[in-house]
Order: sequence, then C-alpha cells, then structure tokens
Amino acid sequence: MYDQVQLPVNEIFGPTIQGEGFVIGRRSMFVRFAYCDYEGVWCDTKYWWMPGLMTFERLTPDQIVEQLVARSRCRWVTLTGGNPAIHNLAPLLAALEDRPDPYHTILETQGSIAREWLALCDLVTLSPKPPSSGMPTHWEKLDRCIAQARNAVLKVVVLDEADYAYAWQVHQHYPNLPMTLQVCNDVGRDNAQTLLDKCRTLAERVLCDDADWGDIAVLPQLHVLLWGNKRGV
Amino acid sequence: MYDQVQLPVNEIFGPTIQGEGFVIGRRSMFVRFAYCDYEGVWCDTKYWWMPGLMTFERLTPDQIVEQLVARSRCRWVTLTGGNPAIHNLAPLLAALEDRPDPYHTILETQGSIAREWLALCDLVTLSPKPPSSGMPTHWEKLDRCIAQARNAVLKVVVLDEADYAYAWQVHQHYPNLPMTLQVCNDVGRDNAQTLLDKCRTLAERVLCDDADWGDIAVLPQLHVLLWGNKRGV
Repeated sequence: MYDQVQLPVNEIFGPTIQGEGFVIGRRSMFVRFAYCDYEGVWCDTKYWWMPGLMTFERLTPDQIVEQLVARSRCRWVTLTGGNPAIHNLAPLLAALEDRPDPYHTILETQGSIAREWLALCDLVTLSPKPPSSGMPTHWEKLDRCIAQARNAVLKVVVLDEADYAYAWQVHQHYPNLPMTLQVCNDVGRDNAQTLLDKCRTLAERVLCDDADWGDIAVLPQLHVLLWGNKRGV
Repeated sequence: MYDQVQLPVNEIFGPTIQGEGFVIGRRSMFVRFAYCDYEGVWCDTKYWWMPGLMTFERLTPDQIVEQLVARSRCRWVTLTGGNPAIHNLAPLLAALEDRPDPYHTILETQGSIAREWLALCDLVTLSPKPPSSGMPTHWEKLDRCIAQARNAVLKVVVLDEADYAYAWQVHQHYPNLPMTLQVCNDVGRDNAQTLLDKCRTLAERVLCDDADWGDIAVLPQLHVLLWGNKRGV
C-alpha cells in the first residue's frame, strides 16, 4: 500500500534508549536517513553522509514498517539523519500511523527544510546549529518549520560561550517553545565523567543566569553515558 | 488573597535541575512539604519525615509564591515531599496559576491519597512503591489518583527482579500511561558510575524484553549524576 516511494535508509536500529531531548530515556526504534544539507564540524554521525563513507539501501515505507515491526513492539520511532527533511516522509508517516497500534513519531532535524508533513509527526525536535558547528542559521526557514510542526521543541548543542549566546538568541526568537541545551560530545575523547562534568558546568551556568529562559532543560546524551560513543545504540 | 491556609513546608529550593521522570533536565523550583504516610526503607529524603529529624515552617500559599518569585523566574515548580497529597494544595495551585506568567506545576506523590485538586496540576508523577521499599500498593487508591489527575505519568524505582516484576504489574494495570523506570539510588554508596552501570543494566533488561511495555523510559536521577547525593540540589 505504501510502496510508491523509495527512501534512502542508512540503518534501522533498536529498540534502544532515546538519548536526547525531551524524549530522553524513551524506548524507541530509529530509522536513519541518508544525506544532509549541512556538514557540521562536530557532527557525530559523519560516517552517514561523508562522501565515500555513506552506505544506504532504498526502502519503501512498507518495507521500513515491516522491519520495525519485526524487531520490536516499540511505541516510539525516531526518524533521524543526516537531515530526514530532505526526503518526502509523508507516505512513511502515513504507514506508521495506519496500524492497529500506531507508532509515535519523533523527527530530528536542524530546521533548514520546511515540509508540510512535519504536521504529521507527534514531535519535531529542531536543532538549529550554533556557531561552533560552522553552519549558518536560516531563521526564515526555521520559522517555517516551526509553523508547519504540530508539536515543536528546540535543542541546541552548546560547546562554548558563543554557542550559549546563540542559544539565548534562539530562545528569544521562540520564547514559548521548550528548549533543551545539550553539551557537545567530543567523540573519541569524552567519556561519561567528562560529559557529566560539562553538563554540570552548563546546568550551573543556566541556573545562575538571571535571564528568563522559559521552559528550559539541560540534558546530557544518555546513550553516550550508558554505552559510550558506539554506533548502533 | 491566598492566605487562608497554612502549609507545612520543609524547604523551598532552586532553581535547580529536575532530576527525575518525564520532566528530567527541566529548570525548576522545588517546594518540599512535611509529612509522609509511607516509611520506605530506601527513601532518599528520610530526613524530612523521620521523627526528630523533621523541621518545617507553616507558610500560606501567598508566602510560598512570594519566596518562589523572589528566587528566580522559573517556568516550572515541583511540589514534593514526603507525600504532598496529605495536604490541601488547592489554594496554592490557584495562587501559582493566578499570575501574569503562571507556573507549570509538577506534583510528585506515591498515589496513596486521591485529591480533587490533582486535576489542577500540569503533571502528576505517581510513583507507587515496589516490593523492595517494604510498602504496600493500594491499587484502588492509585486508581482514584489517576482518575483525578489531568495528566498522569508513572515512575517506578527498580532495585531487583521482584521490583521489575512489580513495574510490569503496574504497566499492565495502566497500559496507556507513560512510565519511567528509575534505578534505586543507594545514598552514601552509589556514585555517578555505579548509578550509570545500574541504569545500563536496567535499560538492557527492558530493551531485551519481548513484552510490550508501551510508552516506557529508563532514566537515572540526573541531579545525583551531576551533584552526587547532596541536599538542596
């Protein structure tokens, strides 16, 4: 039924623990889509989009759902990348919904490509990229993503003071959206203790800040705390 | 205006990071109320209800709000104990709502006392106590709490296999409620690494479980990971 399109899928994995953002800790399946319109300097999934490293197969929505169902009875499925908003996920979202026990869907995107089908996702986590990533923010595109999404939240990775100032700028643009600040994970160097130290420093920075940050959370990447910087978890 | 009742308050603290459950990471103020109808063997706040240890002052809702506002512009306030459902918090909830920028309220209770005013809380985290606590579960009381709450979620602390089986029993009672499993914090013995080890073991237990746990999360106590078992954070 949902076999009319093919989507480039790097990997389907899980069930595992969602490590980030407002759904942290949730038992979730993951579908990672190929291609990205960004090339962030500290991106932790470079192996999925760097030329020569990227491998994927083209799957129909039906095939994706079939693989998800075969692996686990999970309530949540996270659609990530790369930037999954590059593709047309409307048929996949319809297939995930069109089940006796529909999946709850989380879309993870940087917010650089607005799509009507963002409204079909139960949660859209928008992670505009701070200065330390080397990537620009296209505010008007981010505005459009937020306007399209039924349920949008923000996530900003913070490496340094410039990133913190950027996060404040994002909050001022969208004062009513919940936002997570997440410490930057230096893959290959950080371990659980260094990540927790960074997280404590960031948390204390926010807690001592007199500014009104609204609905703000500070969170580590739970999957990295639990399993380190391994792939497939 | 909200000066007609006095509530026994152990402490008002924050802003800090909410360490537990589905609001983990959120910047929040805390109000801890005196008295508990339980005496859990591993309770991590015994000093607030054990005879001879408990100290509190009686404050009106207006006085509580005044102290909260004086300390920080926080969006969330967590009402905890002890068991805060022992008291009549309706006037306090009204006072927290009756502001230009109303607080979002989280109530933390074991679910042993149902109150009509649970419907006034933005989130009610119900944490029925597993076998290792030494406390019974009064299912019909828990049913009534869940029926009263506008937005209820479950949290079960898991120390051992009997607790895990209990969590499953809770999920079967309330299959549509989101539930967090939280590892038991052995105050004075555990540190960040031992807590993460326990959390990983519990996460892997859930991930390898073929049963349909619905909307399930596995989470550590973030405040303990960041600051250890200190009071006032």
